[in-house]
Amino acid sequence: MASSENRENVKGWKSAWSWGKGYFKKIVNVVICVAKDAKKLGEEDPRRIVHSFKVGLAISLVSLFYYFDFLYEGFGVAAMWAVMTVVVVFEFSVGATLGKGVNRGIATLLGGALGVAAHRLAILTGENAESIILGLSVFWISALATFLRFFPKLKARYDYGLLIFILTFSLISVSGYRDDEVIEMAHKRLSTVMIGGSATVLICIFIRPIWAGEDLHNLTATNIEKLAIFLEGFGQEYFETRDDKNKENKASLDGYISVLNVKGTEEVLVNSAKWEPRHGRFRYRHPWGQYLKVGRSIRECAYRIDALNGYLNSEMQTPMEIRTKVQEPCTKMSSECSCALRELAKGLKTMTRSMSADPHIRNAKTAAKSLKSSLQTSLWPNADLLDIIPAATVASLIVEIVSCTIKIADSVHELACLSKFKNPDAVIANETGQGRVAVASDIHESHSVNLVVE
Amino acid sequence: MASSENRENVKGWKSAWSWGKGYFKKIVNVVICVAKDAKKLGEEDPRRIVHSFKVGLAISLVSLFYYFDFLYEGFGVAAMWAVMTVVVVFEFSVGATLGKGVNRGIATLLGGALGVAAHRLAILTGENAESIILGLSVFWISALATFLRFFPKLKARYDYGLLIFILTFSLISVSGYRDDEVIEMAHKRLSTVMIGGSATVLICIFIRPIWAGEDLHNLTATNIEKLAIFLEGFGQEYFETRDDKNKENKASLDGYISVLNVKGTEEVLVNSAKWEPRHGRFRYRHPWGQYLKVGRSIRECAYRIDALNGYLNSEMQTPMEIRTKVQEPCTKMSSECSCALRELAKGLKTMTRSMSADPHIRNAKTAAKSLKSSLQTSLWPNADLLDIIPAATVASLIVEIVSCTIKIADSVHELACLSKFKNPDAVIANETGQGRVAVASDIHESHSVNLVVE
Repeated sequence: MASSENRENVKGWKSAWSWGKGYFKKIVNVVICVAKDAKKLGEEDPRRIVHSFKVGLAISLVSLFYYFDFLYEGFGVAAMWAVMTVVVVFEFSVGATLGKGVNRGIATLLGGALGVAAHRLAILTGENAESIILGLSVFWISALATFLRFFPKLKARYDYGLLIFILTFSLISVSGYRDDEVIEMAHKRLSTVMIGGSATVLICIFIRPIWAGEDLHNLTATNIEKLAIFLEGFGQEYFETRDDKNKENKASLDGYISVLNVKGTEEVLVNSAKWEPRHGRFRYRHPWGQYLKVGRSIRECAYRIDALNGYLNSEMQTPMEIRTKVQEPCTKMSSECSCALRELAKGLKTMTRSMSADPHIRNAKTAAKSLKSSLQTSLWPNADLLDIIPAATVASLIVEIVSCTIKIADSVHELACLSKFKNPDAVIANETGQGRVAVASDIHESHSVNLVVE
Repeated sequence: MASSENRENVKGWKSAWSWGKGYFKKIVNVVICVAKDAKKLGEEDPRRIVHSFKVGLAISLVSLFYYFDFLYEGFGVAAMWAVMTVVVVFEFSVGATLGKGVNRGIATLLGGALGVAAHRLAILTGENAESIILGLSVFWISALATFLRFFPKLKARYDYGLLIFILTFSLISVSGYRDDEVIEMAHKRLSTVMIGGSATVLICIFIRPIWAGEDLHNLTATNIEKLAIFLEGFGQEYFETRDDKNKENKASLDGYISVLNVKGTEEVLVNSAKWEPRHGRFRYRHPWGQYLKVGRSIRECAYRIDALNGYLNSEMQTPMEIRTKVQEPCTKMSSECSCALRELAKGLKTMTRSMSADPHIRNAKTAAKSLKSSLQTSLWPNADLLDIIPAATVASLIVEIVSCTIKIADSVHELACLSKFKNPDAVIANETGQGRVAVASDIHESHSVNLVVE
């Protein structure tokens, strides 16, 4: 009996031990996973780590208010507003931080002033009516400000400000019912918010700043390059017999996919960049809005490329002998567009107003015209229309990509004009001035040029 | 001399008067514009006005803490946390409000607890080291929590909570340096946050609630309908000779465009809806994530429709006599897809697991097959390939739309299964059970079915 109990005990211990071991293993696994994720996040963009330390530093700095007597005496409990401001205002990019800081500062000022005014008004009406007047003004002003937050223009730039306005107004006007030193309170709140805000902005700008504008600029250039990479590889991929070793090649073409989902990021970056002062190669009031236009034309092209990619992957293919008939102009268009896009990306990166993309675009257009002649039915006497259509669709997609490339070139040139990019070959431009102008106008008109097969 | 001076004076007054009048007119114009915008915003969605009043009411209610002595005595200045919580937590939909409220509550609890712990630890080490220990813990914990905000999963659901965690931890641990009653402070903060949060949530839920889940559901159904409207009108628009009176008709087809940009809204709604309790026809843990999948397939279809719309607008057209050759199957496919989409939307709206879309889809597939035969080259002896290609592309786009419609049907059926929609014709289903199952599996397999021309 005892031995069986013993055995049971041993069993119980063993199962508990194995359960504990399993549980422990699970925890260790989770920790390892999190650590790996963290490492990946840090390696993807090391600025994330820097940002985290900057936030820690800013909060520690502002909390010095509490540690030193001569600082604390001035503000007392109001010092916490400084800490709050840092936590809430510190964003990843300088632009977003500045936007939030300015919003918070101005909203605190306005909300505080209006709060003090409401308090005065309530006092004037006598004690009985005071709470009623205060309550009504809080109700109406907060309802009104909440409704203003639905205006799309205000929402884009001043949403946070409106929130803080409601907050400050309610706090100041209602607190005034208990504490008659409303002005001092409003003043303390304003100054601590200002101190917290400026500490945040200073640390954000002067320690390894992250500029939304620069990110937006680089993102745009990189996206153009991604399209170029696809178009470069496409000709070979579609027109040459494929075997397994090309699968690797195929994967490298999928970089353009991220371009399709970048719209939200772009809008956030543009909104942030608008707050940013002169930095690096960008002046204040750089035409950030134009990047949205460039982004739109890039995405238009990317959708065509996505459709093209569908034909790469689809099992139904035009027989090779038919494909080879359109191979030459298609490969030409694709590679010339790729070169043009690369030149545009290079021009953006170096911020030069380069026209080196234009010859490639002209070549692509010529290839589009030569495609027209290769599509004469007489050349395809025995082919079935059903076999031809996929190749013809691919060809017409590439033609559309040519006109998308022209749109991208137009919007990038417009950006270059608006932001006054430097002209690297001004001397050459003077020499061959006329030809250059002709080329530029050629590109600008290209929106209305009806391309073949479209 | 005097008279000329007089004249000058009169001139000056006149110009000042006209300047003033112009300025006044401008202000009046701005006010009128804002009022018009406000009216439009209110008419577009009257719930915006209701929401504004709800926020006003909630803030006024919570500020009662200040007006009544027996309420104020308990909390004192900490009462402002309640007001703050209301302002910051109150969002348009119940889900978003609940998400923020729960985040704020839990984060305040954790941050407060950790803050008290840090304070105790700092006191244990003696007075000299206290500020150093506090400073270091604030620095490291806020840096760590800031880095955690970069994890995509945490960012989606707990971003606000992490922010409030940093905030509360810093406030409590640092304030403790000045005020030894840290626990009381943490307790007051937690209870005022809870009171503000629950007032917000209660008002949000019980006064004209706005459910993110319901909005998401309706949005999805409406989007499917928008595609149906385009496809219904397309056949007539493309294959019939167009004159000016049809331009109006054309504009009504552009409704699908809004579908292209709805992704961000959908993601926000899904994140909010996940927080919502049982409401109306939706239970807690309704499969909200599936709506993203449905949305993706809707957008895939919308991109095809956009390409198709490009052919409607383009000046280069296939001659009418060629177009009529593909007219019948194309019109058939388009209208059948439209009917199928309408049925799907109706099924979603009534939340029934209806199979009434399936016959339409089968018809569309049959039409796609008959298109194949009309595309035999022998039928187009004299036509130029260049003339044929636009019509062929349109046809192949419509075929792609058929397979997109199948994808939409699949994802909607999957949603219906996951969320256990009711089965309106359960009796009929039992009678013709086998046929029904066959149809369903047919649709599920349709992903891998290779459609003609693709």
